[in-house]
Amino acid sequence: MSDYTPTPEDRFSFGLWTVGFRGGDPFGEPTRDRLDPVEAVHRLAELGAWGITFHDDDLIPFGSDAEERSRVLSRFQKALDETGLVVPMVTTNLFTHPVFKDGALTANDRDVRRFALRKVLRNVELAAELGARTFVAWGGREGAETDAAKDVRVALDRYKEGIDVVCQFIKDRGYDLRLALEPKPNEPRGDILLPTVGHALAFIDQLEHPEMVGVNPEVGHEQMAGLNYVHGVAQALWAGKLFHLDLNGQHGIKYDQDLRFGAGDVKNAFFLVDLLESAGYDGPRHFDFKPPRTEDAEGVWASAAGCMRNYLILKERAAAFRADPRVREALEAARVPQLETPTMAPGETAADLLADDDFDVEAAAARGMHYERLDQLAMDHLLGVA
Amino acid sequence: MSDYTPTPEDRFSFGLWTVGFRGGDPFGEPTRDRLDPVEAVHRLAELGAWGITFHDDDLIPFGSDAEERSRVLSRFQKALDETGLVVPMVTTNLFTHPVFKDGALTANDRDVRRFALRKVLRNVELAAELGARTFVAWGGREGAETDAAKDVRVALDRYKEGIDVVCQFIKDRGYDLRLALEPKPNEPRGDILLPTVGHALAFIDQLEHPEMVGVNPEVGHEQMAGLNYVHGVAQALWAGKLFHLDLNGQHGIKYDQDLRFGAGDVKNAFFLVDLLESAGYDGPRHFDFKPPRTEDAEGVWASAAGCMRNYLILKERAAAFRADPRVREALEAARVPQLETPTMAPGETAADLLADDDFDVEAAAARGMHYERLDQLAMDHLLGVA
Amino acid sequence: MSDYTPTPEDRFSFGLWTVGFRGGDPFGEPTRDRLDPVEAVHRLAELGAWGITFHDDDLIPFGSDAEERSRVLSRFQKALDETGLVVPMVTTNLFTHPVFKDGALTANDRDVRRFALRKVLRNVELAAELGARTFVAWGGREGAETDAAKDVRVALDRYKEGIDVVCQFIKDRGYDLRLALEPKPNEPRGDILLPTVGHALAFIDQLEHPEMVGVNPEVGHEQMAGLNYVHGVAQALWAGKLFHLDLNGQHGIKYDQDLRFGAGDVKNAFFLVDLLESAGYDGPRHFDFKPPRTEDAEGVWASAAGCMRNYLILKERAAAFRADPRVREALEAARVPQLETPTMAPGETAADLLADDDFDVEAAAARGMHYERLDQLAMDHLLGVA
Amino acid sequence: MSDYTPTPEDRFSFGLWTVGFRGGDPFGEPTRDRLDPVEAVHRLAELGAWGITFHDDDLIPFGSDAEERSRVLSRFQKALDETGLVVPMVTTNLFTHPVFKDGALTANDRDVRRFALRKVLRNVELAAELGARTFVAWGGREGAETDAAKDVRVALDRYKEGIDVVCQFIKDRGYDLRLALEPKPNEPRGDILLPTVGHALAFIDQLEHPEMVGVNPEVGHEQMAGLNYVHGVAQALWAGKLFHLDLNGQHGIKYDQDLRFGAGDVKNAFFLVDLLESAGYDGPRHFDFKPPRTEDAEGVWASAAGCMRNYLILKERAAAFRADPRVREALEAARVPQLETPTMAPGETAADLLADDDFDVEAAAARGMHYERLDQLAMDHLLGVA
Repeated sequence: MSDYTPTPEDRFSFGLWTVGFRGGDPFGEPTRDRLDPVEAVHRLAELGAWGITFHDDDLIPFGSDAEERSRVLSRFQKALDETGLVVPMVTTNLFTHPVFKDGALTANDRDVRRFALRKVLRNVELAAELGARTFVAWGGREGAETDAAKDVRVALDRYKEGIDVVCQFIKDRGYDLRLALEPKPNEPRGDILLPTVGHALAFIDQLEHPEMVGVNPEVGHEQMAGLNYVHGVAQALWAGKLFHLDLNGQHGIKYDQDLRFGAGDVKNAFFLVDLLESAGYDGPRHFDFKPPRTEDAEGVWASAAGCMRNYLILKERAAAFRADPRVREALEAARVPQLETPTMAPGETAADLLADDDFDVEAAAARGMHYERLDQLAMDHLLGVA
Repeated sequence: MSDYTPTPEDRFSFGLWTVGFRGGDPFGEPTRDRLDPVEAVHRLAELGAWGITFHDDDLIPFGSDAEERSRVLSRFQKALDETGLVVPMVTTNLFTHPVFKDGALTANDRDVRRFALRKVLRNVELAAELGARTFVAWGGREGAETDAAKDVRVALDRYKEGIDVVCQFIKDRGYDLRLALEPKPNEPRGDILLPTVGHALAFIDQLEHPEMVGVNPEVGHEQMAGLNYVHGVAQALWAGKLFHLDLNGQHGIKYDQDLRFGAGDVKNAFFLVDLLESAGYDGPRHFDFKPPRTEDAEGVWASAAGCMRNYLILKERAAAFRADPRVREALEAARVPQLETPTMAPGETAADLLADDDFDVEAAAARGMHYERLDQLAMDHLLGVA
Repeated sequence: MSDYTPTPEDRFSFGLWTVGFRGGDPFGEPTRDRLDPVEAVHRLAELGAWGITFHDDDLIPFGSDAEERSRVLSRFQKALDETGLVVPMVTTNLFTHPVFKDGALTANDRDVRRFALRKVLRNVELAAELGARTFVAWGGREGAETDAAKDVRVALDRYKEGIDVVCQFIKDRGYDLRLALEPKPNEPRGDILLPTVGHALAFIDQLEHPEMVGVNPEVGHEQMAGLNYVHGVAQALWAGKLFHLDLNGQHGIKYDQDLRFGAGDVKNAFFLVDLLESAGYDGPRHFDFKPPRTEDAEGVWASAAGCMRNYLILKERAAAFRADPRVREALEAARVPQLETPTMAPGETAADLLADDDFDVEAAAARGMHYERLDQLAMDHLLGVA
Repeated sequence: MSDYTPTPEDRFSFGLWTVGFRGGDPFGEPTRDRLDPVEAVHRLAELGAWGITFHDDDLIPFGSDAEERSRVLSRFQKALDETGLVVPMVTTNLFTHPVFKDGALTANDRDVRRFALRKVLRNVELAAELGARTFVAWGGREGAETDAAKDVRVALDRYKEGIDVVCQFIKDRGYDLRLALEPKPNEPRGDILLPTVGHALAFIDQLEHPEMVGVNPEVGHEQMAGLNYVHGVAQALWAGKLFHLDLNGQHGIKYDQDLRFGAGDVKNAFFLVDLLESAGYDGPRHFDFKPPRTEDAEGVWASAAGCMRNYLILKERAAAFRADPRVREALEAARVPQLETPTMAPGETAADLLADDDFDVEAAAARGMHYERLDQLAMDHLLGVA
């Protein structure tokens, strides 16, 4: 049994806003002081993380002048150099300031949309400068509380326009950067545009440069719609669009909890890690969680460490599950491998198929799928009693 | 004030399985007798409906031989001829028989997949024969209760294969028929593939003949995931993929209720009708509801009549809302029309945009959106007090 | 048709924190300035409201000294005197300050519990001083994110102890004040104690002075658990425990939206007003909503006015529904009045009942309930087309 | 490490309708044959179960005459005698037959209510005859789809009347039998009366013989309302009302899944077993699950075995969690034991408390709760890596 100690090879990254979360919520004031980004870099490195990510405003306060910006960046870069931490992803804050109260790229006010787009473009430059390869776009304010306020078709036109401009800018500058759209169904808006992985994938297909854009699915965001996160990630992989992902925990359909990874639906987390590892996903394992408001600084780091520890435990368990001969036999009994065989024979036509009508329906209907045995084996491996 | 009496011009259609629903549920036996499809045709015509739709097995019992099938079809056709009712859509039952317990086009058992595909192809022939223009595919059993049972990526390969075969068959036969995929998040499976409008749209983009395939969003299916149905329909329209739709009612996130149209979230229904009518949607207004188990035959027809009546009331209200000069003024105050103006000026580049930096953030942030006034005007129109 | 203009006779009251909500949310800074309580009093009076309510800290900033407190109270009292607005209810803020991050009456730290209890007792004195008759207790922080953190049985002991102390204090002081517990399932805690009307009613039965304590159900709080608010209010009325209520709107199971009354589930709001008015509820019609973050000051007042307007529209509609002879006939057809007849005859014993066995099960099973017709009549009245 | 083999000492019981579930659902026909109750008894005994429970109609088909009833009972009793299995609980089917479509004890039709009550009373006699000590009442049809159909206050009067009659009957007959009400929020009705543990507890307090009535909380039923099952069970224990419970699994807010125990929210199941075992709950560990429709008979028994296995694994883990010195220390750091100390000192009055005002708010606010560390220890024990 491993001791589940993370190393940079595990490619664990954290948002600066996660360990830096101060604990404010709709009903309460912050409970923790501001965390110095430099301290964040050092502490994360000590814990075994590989990367750190941020919204522009997390690092450089909104409205900073060039001098302040330069000072902040140079301190931050120094910390990165000292620790070896990388910046694999950067994202833009288009939601905190009141100017974005009606959206950013889809705000009704055109001047707000233009301001938002400038903020994104400048942040793209910063991302490229820091060597990030992924640029996440969460349109948390793109939405509405009343259907009278927003013609969704027109809003999607503007959304597409904005993303197209960003892609063209990246191409023109020659940056090695891909976009990842982050879906969320609601909160802080009553309904958010591109509410799920599916809607974001469908939107990408309408863009000018679809090959540059993928998705950044977050555990809690899909689970807030009652959807199976593993299914969403799998469909993104199937479409070649899993560019990044946000790992955290959520207890079902309610407000956005951002629990540490593993702390919500443990079994879904097990199958997620199983999927990522078996699919050869080689992007960052990025944690987007919020240490609970009850915690002090010590609790923040315990929470961050827990994210990585849980991933490593589940990774070990998933590997054991796949290696277990009883599991292979149970998969066979459940005919899981048979799904890989195409339904049609090579060269077969619909007419051929219609002619091949020798099938005993009732006999087929009587076959058990043996899924309960298979699922219990998964449970045994998850719980370490296999 | 109209008397809200439907006519065939309203293009209202009903599933045979809706008025024919016998009232069985997971905890109770049917409470009503089987409805003769011929009676259904006559009663719906009397109520002012335009079309009737069905699953193959609704009309022709599973396992019928050619003679029985022919007898049933000729009686049914006679009723259509007598009443002028049309069959705008046909769909396949791939969920009732135990043989489909693990899915149809994505069942692990290849012979089940082949049987399912034959059932679909034969039903396509019937649909074309009856002049249907839309062929709905609801993959209600394509899914799983445990993530160990189904590799979603492989299942999507098989799903795509199946739909591709059907499209090719339609093309080869020269039928004037389009497919419409119907998303649903869960029930009867723990998780169903293509759980929302978004996932189905994204899937369509991966098909061999995406132009032949659209979606058939159902009110309750999106609302079961807490999603705004109007948003889903709008994204489908935006993608040119609203081929059909299923109107009914649902009280939020719970089991699939299939209430009559209007009986769930009334305000969302108002904005839906507003969208359909203003977007020039010219497909069927198809009702897919279940008269509650408490009702006798009389209640069934009252329920069906209520679906159409509510649509017509809401249509009148939405038209009045759009025609009201106070509404136009409120939309202006909310800058809704401004969203139609592209964010970028004609010919403008990202560099141009970055240079145009004269923007008073705080002043923009202080502007109110006036959405509460606008939404109350919508409410006033909905309630008939404007 | 009325013009739906409210008057004090309608007994509409508003929380100071509602019209004073500054628009901050978990992802965004406030968008509006602080509202002077004196202005709130004047504006609400002008709009036709009858009462204003507050948390201690809404009026008197946390940590104010005696002089500041006295100054604030005297300005506020003057505004009340000038406008005739009353203070029917007062409540305590036990959730904003970080000291309450783990709860107030059920915090693990005993000194925090003692501090919380002192804060409540002092606020009880203020409530009595201002003539309030209801003292609401929302234990929004009484809960946990992990089941390891809180032994719920012990927490309920402490909760009971706290409420018992408050009741005894009120009795000892001879105040004419009743407590109303406000249930909520989650947010800001992962799970909150007394999550629904039912749990609060059950808790009250364990108190030392149950007769002094009732509930304060909030529309959105019950709907966040997918529960029918009308059912919850009805059970509270049945138990003689509807001491107060919080009217607002919510779009189903998601984060706490606090929409204006009527803006969520309109049909449920219709049946709620129908119940309150027909049950002779004579307490305040209290609005606990949050004007959306998109609104400026003008929008805030439009939102407040909408709450009252919607109540009055629905009241008119409910009265017309009950007065309609077709509705009475439909209720009769649905045997609704028959439910009022006791199941047992006067003096009948179980043995008598067992002997009275002449019942045609199948005939009874075949009777339709005619609920669809009845519900459509309700819809017609709601929409004003009856 | 144990081998997790159940024995009768574990007090595991199963509903006859669970292993006998034939796999029908709202969209599909049964996939399995009827299970002979005698076979169920033998198989459950072989698996290590202790008890079997049933609805009257599970064992004795609805409408059986006295002879048939006697024959069935004698075969069943023989199987019990041969295996040593006990019948700790019996319940009444008041939901399957169409006669109950509008409810049983609260049906609008008085003759239906009387029939339902007779059915219950006769089943009470059977329960007593078989030595059951608990009589569960699930009012799955007591509810409505429209608020116009049912005056909840009147319905609660009839519900109370019905339960009072049953209690009086039990007392008069001198049976050693207690009632346990089973809450559920919805399905098969749109809204069910007594939707949660809380509502049922509150209802019990209004009965004539509250001491005879407790609750029977079901994992999935509380989770269908997004409620924490552990909290609900804890409040029932706190009120002395946990008379029985139904163990199964559910994936959040959706249709009623009835997964095997442990297969839904594993972590909640861990804390549940921890609570039951540490609270000294000595009633049956009763499984109310449905083997998925995909399974054949072999899968049914694998599913049943899994329920017990998972309970035993979690029991072992919870015991290790409580015994771990690091956990004790973490609980201390989180001040969990301090919650047991009353907030008031012995003899202390409110006046005393108000005088004891020496409290450093900010210092208290700064204390971390250390819950993340504690919760990770729970996770480590759950996953077997502690």
